[in-house]
Amino acid sequence: MTATAYDPVAFHDGLVRHGLIVPAGVDGIFGRGPVFEDVLDRFDKLILRIAEEDGAQVMLFPPTIDRSIIEKTHYMDSFPHLVGAVYSFFGKELAARQLSEQIHAGEAWGEQLAMTHVCLNPAACYPVYPTFAGTVPDQGRLVTLFAWVFRHEPSLEPTRMQAFRVREYVRCGTPDQVVAWRNMWLQRGVEVLQSLGLPAHSDVAADPFFGKGGKMLATSQLEQALKFEVLVPVISEQNPTATCSFNYHQEKFGEAFDIKTPDGQTAHTACLGFGLERVTMALFQTHGFDPATWPAPVRQRLWP
Amino acid sequence: MTATAYDPVAFHDGLVRHGLIVPAGVDGIFGRGPVFEDVLDRFDKLILRIAEEDGAQVMLFPPTIDRSIIEKTHYMDSFPHLVGAVYSFFGKELAARQLSEQIHAGEAWGEQLAMTHVCLNPAACYPVYPTFAGTVPDQGRLVTLFAWVFRHEPSLEPTRMQAFRVREYVRCGTPDQVVAWRNMWLQRGVEVLQSLGLPAHSDVAADPFFGKGGKMLATSQLEQALKFEVLVPVISEQNPTATCSFNYHQEKFGEAFDIKTPDGQTAHTACLGFGLERVTMALFQTHGFDPATWPAPVRQRLWP
Repeated sequence: MTATAYDPVAFHDGLVRHGLIVPAGVDGIFGRGPVFEDVLDRFDKLILRIAEEDGAQVMLFPPTIDRSIIEKTHYMDSFPHLVGAVYSFFGKELAARQLSEQIHAGEAWGEQLAMTHVCLNPAACYPVYPTFAGTVPDQGRLVTLFAWVFRHEPSLEPTRMQAFRVREYVRCGTPDQVVAWRNMWLQRGVEVLQSLGLPAHSDVAADPFFGKGGKMLATSQLEQALKFEVLVPVISEQNPTATCSFNYHQEKFGEAFDIKTPDGQTAHTACLGFGLERVTMALFQTHGFDPATWPAPVRQRLWP
Repeated sequence: MTATAYDPVAFHDGLVRHGLIVPAGVDGIFGRGPVFEDVLDRFDKLILRIAEEDGAQVMLFPPTIDRSIIEKTHYMDSFPHLVGAVYSFFGKELAARQLSEQIHAGEAWGEQLAMTHVCLNPAACYPVYPTFAGTVPDQGRLVTLFAWVFRHEPSLEPTRMQAFRVREYVRCGTPDQVVAWRNMWLQRGVEVLQSLGLPAHSDVAADPFFGKGGKMLATSQLEQALKFEVLVPVISEQNPTATCSFNYHQEKFGEAFDIKTPDGQTAHTACLGFGLERVTMALFQTHGFDPATWPAPVRQRLWP
């Protein structure tokens, strides 16, 4: 039996009432309670075990990344509305006093700060590509990352967050290597979520590119089947939530960061990420707010 | 035998050479490799077990917090130079195209974004206080948090990071409850780190307040012994690194967020945090870059 009707408000209120999330003043930013964290951590460990069996290299980067990565990958051409750039105060004593007075008076103070060299990470995989610069080994590269991701899209809808965590895989190598890896995951992404009793299915998808030009980019992405998602109903049966997302970037990052395969060609890359909060929410919605009452096969998989 | 001489450059290079950290383009922002993460995670679990034995409530917040927390706590009066405020793009099609062109031309683009409602979290405990609003129970509150913290202080020195993780405790209650908790930790903070073979000692300390007025605040903080740190030599024997930090805020957060004790008085708060990267680096510096060669008692504690 599902936790609530498929409804964003009922589901949000249920999560809060059961202490699973804690409102924190801004839409899309909230605290997580101990039971929510336990489930999220157990799902992450399940995916990490698969990554280790695949021989993936473990890496971790902070939530803030080098701003030049945003610039070199032309992120702002496609998603300017989602960026989170980090600003700080560079002034001296007098300017600091004026800034304090403005804030105490309740005035806007955004004009007093200036851009730093860091941005919030907009997708788990971004900081890994510069570390691939040069020639990758014959078998290519396979990395797994755990990352906080930021997207400036405030929403009351609980699965649409400004800050969330992703368990990510990145594959880098020849086009054949990357396509074979994609085909393997097309199957496995669905199977992993179905093994947890989630009514998951996959579909081709497009990124939320900005503006009119973005529509053309989205159409091209769909036609080439460069993106697929694994979807589970959480707040709506008609519009299920993307809990796992695959992106084939072709030569984009290989060109931006000068990554080559041993034959001298530009390397191809792809990434696959599980949205950890979204999978956790899908589990609560599908099986109920109390994990003690979840079906035995689901519990055995997460509490082995 | 220590991993390197007490020298920031030698230690940084050693961490990189052994794959423990991975340079990522900006001073104070770097990737972490699998061995670094394993040690950090094991130390965190050790402290979390203590927290659970103490009956602490587990909570987790994203790296980005409600900007109004920064405003209400007057953070910018004391640390404007360390803040990380998050800016995004709010314009339409034409402005987005101009922004893209600026970035492609290598021009500065900081003027094109505007302040959002979120800031990077400047100290692990900040987002928890608004959730305490109202009257705390008789025994007060005790919470443990795992958090990414941001401070805008770019540095080549590996223990001085812009982004780092903290295992934090927060205590809230009457002055007597909070002071008793401080006195207990004054001893325990040192003991925990010494049990890992680290040459740790504690000392009173002051925060890096901004400007001339800041010197007065620092003197007052030292005189009242409101802050203490547990220090371990990592890059210098003369200036050991703060690996654990305790702050007694008295009524500051209780006033800002209207937190009361059952007798109607403003609640007092204190926090204690272990800098997880710093403790991890202290372990590598003290025992060597390869955990397999660490002394048996240290290994038994971390790999129980």
